[in-house]
Amino acid sequence: MTLMTPPPAPLGIGAPDVARRFTRSAAMADSPVNPSAAFEAWFAGRRARAVFDVRQIEFGNLRGWSFDPETGDLGHDSGRFFRIEGLDVRTDWGWQPRWSQPIINQPEIGILGIVVKEFDGVLHVLLQAKTEPGNIDAVQLSPTVQATRSNYTGAHGGRAIPYLEYFREPGRSRVLVDSLQSEQASWFLHKRNRNLVVEVTEDVELLDGFCWLTVGQLHRLLHREHVVNMDTRTVLSCIPFQAPNGPFRTSTPVGYREALVRSMAPVDATGSAPGALHTDGEVISWLTDTKTRHELVQRTVPLKGLPHWRRTETEIAHETGHYFRIIAVDVRAGDREVASWSQPLLAPVETGRCALLVRPVGGVLHLLLQARTGPGVLDMAELGPTVQCLPGSTADQPAHRQPRFLDVVAAARPDQIRYDRVQSEEGGRFHAAANRYQVIEVGEDFGLEVPPEFRWVTVGQVTGLLRHSHYLNVELRSLLATLHTTW
Amino acid sequence: MTLMTPPPAPLGIGAPDVARRFTRSAAMADSPVNPSAAFEAWFAGRRARAVFDVRQIEFGNLRGWSFDPETGDLGHDSGRFFRIEGLDVRTDWGWQPRWSQPIINQPEIGILGIVVKEFDGVLHVLLQAKTEPGNIDAVQLSPTVQATRSNYTGAHGGRAIPYLEYFREPGRSRVLVDSLQSEQASWFLHKRNRNLVVEVTEDVELLDGFCWLTVGQLHRLLHREHVVNMDTRTVLSCIPFQAPNGPFRTSTPVGYREALVRSMAPVDATGSAPGALHTDGEVISWLTDTKTRHELVQRTVPLKGLPHWRRTETEIAHETGHYFRIIAVDVRAGDREVASWSQPLLAPVETGRCALLVRPVGGVLHLLLQARTGPGVLDMAELGPTVQCLPGSTADQPAHRQPRFLDVVAAARPDQIRYDRVQSEEGGRFHAAANRYQVIEVGEDFGLEVPPEFRWVTVGQVTGLLRHSHYLNVELRSLLATLHTTW
Repeated sequence: MTLMTPPPAPLGIGAPDVARRFTRSAAMADSPVNPSAAFEAWFAGRRARAVFDVRQIEFGNLRGWSFDPETGDLGHDSGRFFRIEGLDVRTDWGWQPRWSQPIINQPEIGILGIVVKEFDGVLHVLLQAKTEPGNIDAVQLSPTVQATRSNYTGAHGGRAIPYLEYFREPGRSRVLVDSLQSEQASWFLHKRNRNLVVEVTEDVELLDGFCWLTVGQLHRLLHREHVVNMDTRTVLSCIPFQAPNGPFRTSTPVGYREALVRSMAPVDATGSAPGALHTDGEVISWLTDTKTRHELVQRTVPLKGLPHWRRTETEIAHETGHYFRIIAVDVRAGDREVASWSQPLLAPVETGRCALLVRPVGGVLHLLLQARTGPGVLDMAELGPTVQCLPGSTADQPAHRQPRFLDVVAAARPDQIRYDRVQSEEGGRFHAAANRYQVIEVGEDFGLEVPPEFRWVTVGQVTGLLRHSHYLNVELRSLLATLHTTW
Repeated sequence: MTLMTPPPAPLGIGAPDVARRFTRSAAMADSPVNPSAAFEAWFAGRRARAVFDVRQIEFGNLRGWSFDPETGDLGHDSGRFFRIEGLDVRTDWGWQPRWSQPIINQPEIGILGIVVKEFDGVLHVLLQAKTEPGNIDAVQLSPTVQATRSNYTGAHGGRAIPYLEYFREPGRSRVLVDSLQSEQASWFLHKRNRNLVVEVTEDVELLDGFCWLTVGQLHRLLHREHVVNMDTRTVLSCIPFQAPNGPFRTSTPVGYREALVRSMAPVDATGSAPGALHTDGEVISWLTDTKTRHELVQRTVPLKGLPHWRRTETEIAHETGHYFRIIAVDVRAGDREVASWSQPLLAPVETGRCALLVRPVGGVLHLLLQARTGPGVLDMAELGPTVQCLPGSTADQPAHRQPRFLDVVAAARPDQIRYDRVQSEEGGRFHAAANRYQVIEVGEDFGLEVPPEFRWVTVGQVTGLLRHSHYLNVELRSLLATLHTTW
């Protein structure tokens, strides 16, 4: 019954200075505290010296993990961490009315927290060069704290988590961002993490493995692949920015950058954003309507005997070879709270595709969002990118089952492409999981009339929705974080 | 894949005129269109003439419903409507770490929709005198449309639903309120309904069984018991009102009514409400923090062999006699889309207690809300009344397990009680379910320091949160609807 402590106070969520100060940090492409050249040398060193050995093993050689003899579910003997279970999905959404699949069930909410601190008048974010067993390139930049509830309550039996006190002890920080956000609905059942940004004014010791960066430096790193991990990107997506300059002329046509900056105008108290095609209320009502018109029944079932999935000594895979495999790995690490362990991982069989079409409407950039369901989504549907798919698993399907607008994305000319990088998904649960993220600009000749599951929304509107849970899926949040690198 | 129609447009959600016009309607204690005397005669007639015969039967005599031979779950042979299943709950919230119970699983989102229309410049709501098998006094005032997805897609094989077109056909109405809201988390697994208010300007035929009322008339009826059903109350709670008059002097102390009116000031774009102890962002952050600190694992399990629950030929009941029973009834009705059917109902064994402590803080009324979990809650926790309990089932518990502030509620003097009525819960799934709803004013000597799971919040703040899902539970929404009757 007892809550240990109240949340950190005072809070700065929604305070007018926050967006302005983060925008100032985004304008700083380098930092006197941690010049980019020094960061590069340090980060290359972290990667070169990473003592991290991950090898696939047979399920039978997992230590502490076993298949439940009755259900075939794969879980930890302590009953904690996560379990691989079966999920039966029935829905009238999409062309597959029913299917079963393995899914990761981890019914606890973790913390993804970034500490920020002002140096020379500029906010810096504190990131960690962190290894995860499933990481591409082993080391990626993660939030200051990236901890499951099992982690921070000590179920791992590991070392204390550095900097956790700034998120747990009242008075140590000012909360600037705080919201529960979902993770991959294809692979996780009802998973959310708490996305936090806290500002600290006291002196902060810089521990080994951590670095300070301006948001501008981080934005540059987002133009490299597999450097900024998914957890950092989702927290970053929740940070509000203010139009970096303006006001602009009202004449049209305006350039891409000007249209993007205008799109960042925040939603006002009546739910309207300047120049937006729809009000906030209309967008929420449309999403609600979409949820109401569809059916989604999720039921956990035994992993044993899941139709169309085959378990061998080394993997659980779909008989078509599509989607993903469940594998087991043995991990030896030099820089983690526990030096050696084994665990299951979910290994996608292909790189996914996440593309966001953007279009100026009356000089204000609009993002074409899709209301999407997913096997593990908690509240029927969330807003996702225009296109989100596994191209290989739909390639053999007829034309009417191809994702909408995939043809537009595939045919994009180089001058339309504002962002195009492959980025990693979470490396603690997924093995080498990645999506190709693209922001593609279409012209004013691209029709505003779209199918009913799509809507045109401004950046200011999605940023407002991110103060709440259940609106933006994690793939769209990654794209929003990268969109802010294209000012 | 195909969505049938886009949502009705244009939308008026958040439009500045909406709160003003509803407030004007609330000030009209009578209506020229439907004078209260005429309404009373009509409503008494509906109750007198209600052809509605409900009698308890043995489970074996249910038509179309049966226990699954393997799981013991009670479901309809068509696989639709709802099922009574078992639920296993594990949580570190409250003093019971684990329990099992029957729960209603109805994985579809229904519509609770009220049509409003202006007569003589005043908005009127269109309500239905509706019978439900579990209703106290058989007939209560329900929303214009109160339909499960099975209803409105025709799974009942019943008649067309009157007025549904105003909620389903674009261009027939202007949407004023639209949000998904949860229902009783003690009895329903993850249940939500879509709360809608739409304004119609075209002529609307007044069908038999329906009536137009001003909000003021409805507010007066809320001071009677079992007249306004739960579904009407929850939709009503989502309607924004504007301070009915003012500005007020800033001197303190102010009276109750003045403090309440000030409390209704809406939240501004930065998430602040005038005079509120906490910003919007702080309230959301506190709720998020509370969710993160706790664990709630919900798992559907077979109803057969549920520990501590006993099934006889006529009921499924807890061995202590507490909580609720599952029973079966046979229904013969004259005014429903299907004239005769049988179904299971959940019958609580006692009247619950829902009390809201309110206190002026600096001349602005604040509501003392509690972050509460529940066996069937979808997203860990929601905001509930200060006290929400079944007194009988905790009466034999030691003092430290008694609900917080129940002693304050029990000791309230008559002059502190702003509202005190027993009102019904939903009669389509529950048999004679009711709670005693109380609004109790405490003075400025009542401490602002409260336990960590409680927060003081203004009316404007909770009204803002009601634009989104997952914030206010249905009991708090009922209290909010009644609070607006105390201006």
